[in-house]
Amino acid sequence: MSFTLSSTPRQDGYWMPGEFEPHAGTWMLWPQRPDNWRLGGKPAQRAFAAVARAIAQFEPVTMGVNLDQFANARQMLPPQVRVVEIANNDAWMRDCGPTFVINGKGGVRGVDWDFNAWGGLFNGLYFPWDYDQAVAQKVLEIERLDRYKAPLVLEGGSIHVDGQGTCLTTAECLLSPGRNPQLSQDEIEHYLIEYLNVEKVLWIPRGVFNDETSGHVDNLACFIRPGVVALTWTDDRTDPQHERSAEAYDFLRSTSDARGRKLEVHKIHQPDPVLIQPEEAEGVDAVAGTLPRQAGDRMAASYINFYFCNQAAIVPTFGDPHDGQALEALQRLMPERRVIGLPAREILLGGGNIHCITQQQPKG
Amino acid sequence: MSFTLSSTPRQDGYWMPGEFEPHAGTWMLWPQRPDNWRLGGKPAQRAFAAVARAIAQFEPVTMGVNLDQFANARQMLPPQVRVVEIANNDAWMRDCGPTFVINGKGGVRGVDWDFNAWGGLFNGLYFPWDYDQAVAQKVLEIERLDRYKAPLVLEGGSIHVDGQGTCLTTAECLLSPGRNPQLSQDEIEHYLIEYLNVEKVLWIPRGVFNDETSGHVDNLACFIRPGVVALTWTDDRTDPQHERSAEAYDFLRSTSDARGRKLEVHKIHQPDPVLIQPEEAEGVDAVAGTLPRQAGDRMAASYINFYFCNQAAIVPTFGDPHDGQALEALQRLMPERRVIGLPAREILLGGGNIHCITQQQPKG
Repeated sequence: MSFTLSSTPRQDGYWMPGEFEPHAGTWMLWPQRPDNWRLGGKPAQRAFAAVARAIAQFEPVTMGVNLDQFANARQMLPPQVRVVEIANNDAWMRDCGPTFVINGKGGVRGVDWDFNAWGGLFNGLYFPWDYDQAVAQKVLEIERLDRYKAPLVLEGGSIHVDGQGTCLTTAECLLSPGRNPQLSQDEIEHYLIEYLNVEKVLWIPRGVFNDETSGHVDNLACFIRPGVVALTWTDDRTDPQHERSAEAYDFLRSTSDARGRKLEVHKIHQPDPVLIQPEEAEGVDAVAGTLPRQAGDRMAASYINFYFCNQAAIVPTFGDPHDGQALEALQRLMPERRVIGLPAREILLGGGNIHCITQQQPKG
Repeated sequence: MSFTLSSTPRQDGYWMPGEFEPHAGTWMLWPQRPDNWRLGGKPAQRAFAAVARAIAQFEPVTMGVNLDQFANARQMLPPQVRVVEIANNDAWMRDCGPTFVINGKGGVRGVDWDFNAWGGLFNGLYFPWDYDQAVAQKVLEIERLDRYKAPLVLEGGSIHVDGQGTCLTTAECLLSPGRNPQLSQDEIEHYLIEYLNVEKVLWIPRGVFNDETSGHVDNLACFIRPGVVALTWTDDRTDPQHERSAEAYDFLRSTSDARGRKLEVHKIHQPDPVLIQPEEAEGVDAVAGTLPRQAGDRMAASYINFYFCNQAAIVPTFGDPHDGQALEALQRLMPERRVIGLPAREILLGGGNIHCITQQQPKG
């Protein structure tokens, strides 16, 4: 029960609302692949379960799981979390899940982008990705929501919107040769305009240093609300992230959103460099064709990779001296919400964070 | 999102309504196993799709499919039918799906019986059946409905209720040594009373001749409405079915329902004996531990194995001279419904019929 429409959201008066707008619920996927998650996925599963539990205090959560993990996921998750079979190659619902759009009259539909594991045969992170590619459709089937099949390789983590006509993205990711090399920037922007129904796309040059997603915006910057952006930051000029964040800051301060507002940009200082430890690297299977996890590699740790849910924000923490200050800064930016920190190192070890493993389904 | 309750429906004021009462929708499973369905399941898939399409004219239909058949099922089914991943060993949603119960105040819950493939290691039809055993829970998860786990081996096809306190079943099946040999008839009846919330269980002695389910009642007799029963019949006294139907007729006419009503019993003449043809038997894989499909075997063909949906009844036909008279008789019995005949030989070849492959979810 999901009709695939040949029109676009823009043609039909549907648009992607801001993540900070009311949700009907949250979708997640359950981690397991032992070539990405250490120790057979058990530490990550505990971390994902904690995220699901935190969100479920505020809104319904659905966890998609592979068949062979159904019983284990059902057991590790509280009964409030709905568990459904959805085959997946890995656990990044932000990136392979649908982008939901609404029409302001109760209608909700989903955009199903092409997915190629963050770069396909050029620089994708694993092979194959056929189950991931089908996740969006399966979510929409379960919810009986109609579907736009967008002819564009795109992950949900590479875009943010303010729900008022502005899309935030990075050129590093969307123009990466592993995504849509046959399309020009203008053509890609055209698809964003049609499928997100936005008026203006803000192209930040680059994402976070060493981010294996080719620089997803959701690790770098996000809308707190229309006109207000949070940006990962470091004061350390010797850190390669400094140049990237400064460049993004200058770009964001020099532009305006779709409604002509200058953007308020709030810097959230990153944690100190987070490196993969030898015992962490040793817990991961080596598999040809999967990005290896090597001891000493720096991970793209950022507090910006948090998730808005109804009345709260779930923010990754790293056991780092900057944790407290990041939580406080975010709490000041959103006094109407409860800001909740959750230890997220085990999620980060898999290559992303709390925002990457969640996908909001807006209220119709 | 499915709480498992330690109480029983009877304790909580929930009961199983009649199948002829209003539905929220219908659940089915998609056939594929090549040791039961000939020609890789393709003819059966077309027949199941026709059943789904017929029901979907009247109420929402959800098809549970194994992962490897998702794309094919999605393609063969109309978009109105919802397709979801639900791993299964075979396609009998009636028997492994939940029995839904309601409380008359909008509440709907599900009873999850034990399932052992119609006889377990004693005389079950295949091994293993672990996916089937989990189907009911997965259906309830998707629907966010709470669950009663009944400590009893039982298939949905072995019971019918009138929604007014009466349960119809067969002793042949429920007392079969492959089901609950450790329980007495009284103990089994106690579970039916608790989990279906009925007052009276009518134990018909035997089901249909050569029915591999050990005589499920749903192939023999059903409630058309409270007080009115339809019964498969043959006038041929040399047919081993005659004795079984006559015995059931005499039993039903000699008893009364939970409200003290005498039962009106309508005979629906069966088709002529339906035998497996050599080319049909040849299309099925031989697999150790699976009931073989042998040319010349008589199948348990019955018009009673039909399905009520909102405003209609979907009735199997066999290309038999009795088809028309059965459809007319059923139409006379339910003038308020549209009686729709569908060719069902390909379903029968798998060991059951339209009622066996459907499960109603009542309106709350």
